[in-house]
Amino acid sequence: MPFARLSDLAHFSPEKMQKNPILDCPQMVADVYCLEPGQEQRVHAHAGEAKMYCVVDGRGDFTIGDASRTLAAGEIAWSPAGVVHGVRNAYAERLTVLVVMAPNPNLRRE
Amino acid sequence: MPFARLSDLAHFSPEKMQKNPILDCPQMVADVYCLEPGQEQRVHAHAGEAKMYCVVDGRGDFTIGDASRTLAAGEIAWSPAGVVHGVRNAYAERLTVLVVMAPNPNLRRE
Repeated sequence: MPFARLSDLAHFSPEKMQKNPILDCPQMVADVYCLEPGQEQRVHAHAGEAKMYCVVDGRGDFTIGDASRTLAAGEIAWSPAGVVHGVRNAYAERLTVLVVMAPNPNLRRE
Repeated sequence: MPFARLSDLAHFSPEKMQKNPILDCPQMVADVYCLEPGQEQRVHAHAGEAKMYCVVDGRGDFTIGDASRTLAAGEIAWSPAGVVHGVRNAYAERLTVLVVMAPNPNLRRE
């Protein structure tokens, strides 16, 4: 399907951050990340992929390289390939983030 | 800069739809498209790039291949490489859209 509504895809789990798929093609993948208070995506890097985060709802503490910033709805963080990045929901409300990676990292495993 | 606020980048013009850059790297480009009422991005295709639209504010009529749908804030349309796509603001309010293309189409021109 070429159309989707982010709120329909946003599912949370008390166990860990959820990545809910939006689209998947060779050039990119997009997901809705859903983080309960206290959940995080630990700082990591991808050698060949760039990543963009856009906050949809809530607030999160984003790290890109040696920079960190608290972002709210309508704010973006992005990481070039090879740069460390991560996000933590250190707040009392749920955090929803639209995330795009390019190219599709799963192609490397096929 | 690895951080941005969409509302800071959203600039409109009475002449035509504006593409306001957010990020630009080899793997992807992201822009904020700003469409005054009546403005459009005509239906077109890219042989090698995928595109994702996410409505930030307002409403737009999106075409992907032979499908069309009116989308509002928090809704997504996406086009695989080689598929025709476009958007028209047929409404009375301004339309703001987050758009990601992958890979960077400008690399082909360098």
